[in-house]
Amino acid sequence: MIIDCHGHYTTEPKDLHRFRKEQTAAANAKDKAAMPARSGLKMSDDEIKESIEGNQLKLQRERGTDLTIFSPRASGMGHHIGDEAVSTEWTEICNDLIHRVVTLYPKNFIGVCQLPQSQGVSPKNSIAELERCVKMGFVGCNLNPDPSGGYFNSPPLTDKWWYPFYEKMVELDVPAMIHVSGCCNPAMHTTGSYYLNADTMAFMQIILSDLFKDFPKLKFIIPHGGGAVPFHWGRFRGIALNNGKPELAEIMANNIFFDTCVYHQPGIDLLTRVVPIDNILFASEMVGAVKGNDPKTGFGFDDTKRYVDKAAGLTDADRAKIFEHNTMRVFSRLKAQIAKQAA
Amino acid sequence: MIIDCHGHYTTEPKDLHRFRKEQTAAANAKDKAAMPARSGLKMSDDEIKESIEGNQLKLQRERGTDLTIFSPRASGMGHHIGDEAVSTEWTEICNDLIHRVVTLYPKNFIGVCQLPQSQGVSPKNSIAELERCVKMGFVGCNLNPDPSGGYFNSPPLTDKWWYPFYEKMVELDVPAMIHVSGCCNPAMHTTGSYYLNADTMAFMQIILSDLFKDFPKLKFIIPHGGGAVPFHWGRFRGIALNNGKPELAEIMANNIFFDTCVYHQPGIDLLTRVVPIDNILFASEMVGAVKGNDPKTGFGFDDTKRYVDKAAGLTDADRAKIFEHNTMRVFSRLKAQIAKQAA
Repeated sequence: MIIDCHGHYTTEPKDLHRFRKEQTAAANAKDKAAMPARSGLKMSDDEIKESIEGNQLKLQRERGTDLTIFSPRASGMGHHIGDEAVSTEWTEICNDLIHRVVTLYPKNFIGVCQLPQSQGVSPKNSIAELERCVKMGFVGCNLNPDPSGGYFNSPPLTDKWWYPFYEKMVELDVPAMIHVSGCCNPAMHTTGSYYLNADTMAFMQIILSDLFKDFPKLKFIIPHGGGAVPFHWGRFRGIALNNGKPELAEIMANNIFFDTCVYHQPGIDLLTRVVPIDNILFASEMVGAVKGNDPKTGFGFDDTKRYVDKAAGLTDADRAKIFEHNTMRVFSRLKAQIAKQAA
Repeated sequence: MIIDCHGHYTTEPKDLHRFRKEQTAAANAKDKAAMPARSGLKMSDDEIKESIEGNQLKLQRERGTDLTIFSPRASGMGHHIGDEAVSTEWTEICNDLIHRVVTLYPKNFIGVCQLPQSQGVSPKNSIAELERCVKMGFVGCNLNPDPSGGYFNSPPLTDKWWYPFYEKMVELDVPAMIHVSGCCNPAMHTTGSYYLNADTMAFMQIILSDLFKDFPKLKFIIPHGGGAVPFHWGRFRGIALNNGKPELAEIMANNIFFDTCVYHQPGIDLLTRVVPIDNILFASEMVGAVKGNDPKTGFGFDDTKRYVDKAAGLTDADRAKIFEHNTMRVFSRLKAQIAKQAA
C-alpha cells in the first residue's frame, strides 16, 4: 500500500472561495453585518466529485498511490485573517468539506484537520475542533507555528504556551504536521521560502529543547523534507552535539518525521542518505506547491513517488517503510480508520 | 591558490566586547551620557596577533587554505541595536579592526566590510562606509536583508529601497554577501535556522524579479550553500518556470553565487551536483557557526575543504573554479588587491 501523508484540497468548489473572500472583506472592514452566511454556501456533491476525480484521484491512479491523508489547503488556513471567531467558522467549514470528500471516497482519502488558530490566541482553544474532527474519523492535524502569516512572533513550539494542545494530541493519539499558511509578509514567498523557513525553524526550536521529555508520545511531521535540515545535517548535528544533545537520529527517533515533498531526484537521494529511514514518510503535497511537468524529465515536479522509487541505496524494505509502515506507525489511528472506511 | 570567501573575525580582543556591551546598554537605556568612548578601546597588535595565530591562521595552515576573505563577526553586526548613530560607530570600529588584521597579515586576509544599516533607515546611508572601506582595500560587503534581527520587516531585496546602494556597489565593482546578523526573535536560532532562512528568502525574492535586468553587473553571494535552495532545487526551478522565468542556472549566471558552508559530505555532494560549478565559491565560515570535530569523521565540522576535495563527480578543473577562479571573478577587485598586499 502506498500512502501519501501530505495532500491538501486545493481544487475546492468555487463557492468556497466566494465565501472566504466575503468573510475576509468583512473581517478586514470589521463589519459583522457584511459577514456571509455559512448556510449560503453552495457546494454540491457533484462539484466535489468533479474537482477530485479530475485531479487528486486521477493523479493517484496515474502515479500508483493508494491513499492520501488529506487536509484543507494549507495556504488557505489564513490564521492571520480576522479574529478567533472568523478563524473558527472558516476552519469548521474547511474541515467539514474534507469530511465530505472522505465520505465520498472512503478508500482514497482520510482526513487531517486544520485548526482554528488565531494570532495571540492560546492553542488550547483549538482543542474542541481537534476533538470534533477526530470523532469524524480524522487521524491528525496541521499545527501552524506562525499564525501571524510571516512575522514569526509566536512563542517557539517548545514553549509551555503550546502544552495544553499537546496534552490533547497525546490523549487522542494524533500527530501534527507543522505547517504554516499563506504568507502576508512581502519578504517571503508562500511556497518558495516561507514554508521551508518554518520547517527549518521548527526543527531547530525542538532539537535544543526537552519537549519530548515532557511529551514522550508527541509526534510531529515536519513537511517539505524537513525544510533545509537534511542539506545542512552536519550544521544541525554539530549544533546539537555542541549543546550537549545526542545525535539527531536519537532526537528524532519516535517524535520527529520528515516527508518526501522534495521535487527532484538529488534532493530525495540526499534525504534518504542522511535521515533515518524510519523517520521518512512518503508524501507529494499534490496538487500543490509546484504544478506541471519538469521539462527535463517530462514528469510532474511533485511526482515524488518516482524519486523514491529510484533513490540510490534504498532496499525494498526501506521503500515499504517510507510508503506505508512508517506512516501507519506515526498516524496511530490510521489502520483502524482504513478498516472502518473500507467497511 | 585556495581562497575561503567567507570568514568572520569571531575571536576578537576582549575589550571590543566590553565596548559593545556598554554601548548596547546605553542604547537600550537611551542614555547618551553612558555611551562608552571609542578612544577608550584597548586592543593591542599583540592581542590581535594572538587571537588570529591561534585560530584562523592555525586552521588555514592545518587545512591547507591560503587566503580568507575576512569580515566582522556576522552575528555581532546587530543592526537592530540602537539607532543609526550607534550602528555607524560600531560598524566603523569593526571594519577598522578588520583592516588592522589585514595589515598585520596581508598575505592571509583581505577585508569585506560590515555596513552601518539600521532598522527603517535607507540603505543609501551605508554608501559612505562602503566607500571608506573600499579605499582601505576591502573587496566586498556583507548586506543584511533583515536589520530587524528576525522579524523580516524590510522591503524585499528587489525593492527600489535598496537601489541607491546597488548603484554604488556596481560603480565600485564590489559584490555583497547577503548575511543577516544575530537573531533577537526567540522563534529562531541565529546560526541554526535564522541564517539559513534569510538565505532561502533572499534567493526566492530575487528569482521572480527583474533585479538583474536593472543591474546586470550586481553580484550577490548567498552563503551557507544557498540555504535550503540546493536541497529544494526542483521546487525553486518549478516555481521559476511556472512564473515564466528561465532555468535557475540562467537566472544565477553572473549574478548569484552560493558558498560551500555546508558541514557534511552529502550536502556538498548535492550542492556540486545541482548548482552550476561556476556559481559555487569555496568557504568555511571558520571560526564560526559550528565549532569542534565531527565525532564520526574526527575532523572539524567546518573543514569544508575536505568535503570539496572528496565531492563525487568533480574534476580538478571544477575544484580550481570553486577554490579560486570563481572567487577571483566575483570579487573583481581581489586579484589587484592580492598583488598590492603581497608587495
